[in-house]
Amino acid sequence: MNPSKISVFAPGLIGGSVALASSHFFPKATLAVWTRRSESLPPLRAALPKAEVGTEPGLARSSDLVVLAAPPAVLPELVRSILPYLSPSTLVTDVSSVKESVEKSVAPLLQGRARWIGSHPMAGSENSGLGAARTGLFQNAPVILTPTASTASTTTRDASSFWQALGARILTMSPESHDEQVARISHLPHLISSALVLAAGKKSLPLAGPGYRDTTRIAAGPSELWSEILLENRREILAALKDFRSSMDALASALDQKDPQSLQKILDEAAGIRRNLSPSS
Amino acid sequence: MNPSKISVFAPGLIGGSVALASSHFFPKATLAVWTRRSESLPPLRAALPKAEVGTEPGLARSSDLVVLAAPPAVLPELVRSILPYLSPSTLVTDVSSVKESVEKSVAPLLQGRARWIGSHPMAGSENSGLGAARTGLFQNAPVILTPTASTASTTTRDASSFWQALGARILTMSPESHDEQVARISHLPHLISSALVLAAGKKSLPLAGPGYRDTTRIAAGPSELWSEILLENRREILAALKDFRSSMDALASALDQKDPQSLQKILDEAAGIRRNLSPSS
Repeated sequence: MNPSKISVFAPGLIGGSVALASSHFFPKATLAVWTRRSESLPPLRAALPKAEVGTEPGLARSSDLVVLAAPPAVLPELVRSILPYLSPSTLVTDVSSVKESVEKSVAPLLQGRARWIGSHPMAGSENSGLGAARTGLFQNAPVILTPTASTASTTTRDASSFWQALGARILTMSPESHDEQVARISHLPHLISSALVLAAGKKSLPLAGPGYRDTTRIAAGPSELWSEILLENRREILAALKDFRSSMDALASALDQKDPQSLQKILDEAAGIRRNLSPSS
Repeated sequence: MNPSKISVFAPGLIGGSVALASSHFFPKATLAVWTRRSESLPPLRAALPKAEVGTEPGLARSSDLVVLAAPPAVLPELVRSILPYLSPSTLVTDVSSVKESVEKSVAPLLQGRARWIGSHPMAGSENSGLGAARTGLFQNAPVILTPTASTASTTTRDASSFWQALGARILTMSPESHDEQVARISHLPHLISSALVLAAGKKSLPLAGPGYRDTTRIAAGPSELWSEILLENRREILAALKDFRSSMDALASALDQKDPQSLQKILDEAAGIRRNLSPSS
């Protein structure tokens, strides 16, 4: 995909990084960035001096690609506002970390009006907002595309090519499979990380070593955003939590019964799985 | 403390790093390094060309400081083997991550024979062994000293001064308080991290982003060592696990009841605590 105009709507951490990376990797394309709040315009102009920035949905006009980075709950309203400025060849995607509900709320609105596919860049941070955005956020990050039966293969191909240009590696799966797997690899860790912080409390913080730092880093993330993400994917997260509980119970019972063989066996199984993950890709 | 001879017993990740850092920060001191297995002598000589290395406990002779880096279960035997080579002024410490049981097993053996104080450098890694050791491991790392009613203040002072020379920041507390707090800040996170890996399984690994990577990094650690640590501190870990469960249950119930207010409130509380931790110290 070689877009001549890219629009980014709602530039926080992810959207802002998409805008920065687009401006870096597609230097010849026109970049338009929309924000809901006029107070955000001065920092946007400072971060992206060559972009058209504004609060009017008409910024989407003539775009080859529109990236919607707003929270899932406001996506339908945002999509309706830009409909007049889309053409059937415009590629529209999002960056939400839940996909089945977004697919249901957004795809029907865009049918016949634009080419739609869901995207989920797995490149968060405990920081949020435009100030935390950076050009390299997607380097080696997994980006999951969620085509459905009605997605044209050229749409998937063009979305892949865009994210790959930003440095990402692409995975493709159905919205349902996405939500199930992401519940386990991203949402459950967030929930658990928060519970760990609460169990340790404030008193022991001066003792924190790298183990505590790493396991709880994401718990410092924006609670409003995370509350929304977790609720959107609650069914899958509760299923994942069931499996988590049974592993935790097995560990607790080995401890309770002073059973080094069982304890080491469970720890070993986890270590074996975790070591499949390369350190830096 | 300005030791003219430092001995390190059982150089894995922590002991090896103590040896490397001692050789760097006390270049004039004699360094002796003991290992149980003669196969470990060639890599030890390669890593520490200026140190005396060997498998004889007599290496401890004339040391001002002896650092015992063996697992808690073998410390009493190790201490007995070096007793003939200690003097009442020798400072002996360990690096175990449990302190009450070590205090009970080691302090009586050394009473009147050497100056003893427990140390716990909070500077682990998912890697283990001498190969992972590095000079800078203790830079800005918390090292907890656990003096008791019978510890002379000069002993605490000398142990502090040694670890500070290696770059650490010192915290002092009783062995009991250490075990209680470390259960929450280090041992519970390890247990939970392993359960998270098992709940996510192998299938979703290609989707792993930084959240999963960080929350589960320590689960790749050596299971034998961790099994021993967790069992040594089982009582405190099971108590911490109880608090963890009640936070997790509160989060699960907010999810189950689709209650954004409660969910966000709990996430917010955790984020508020976690943000007290400075990013890099």
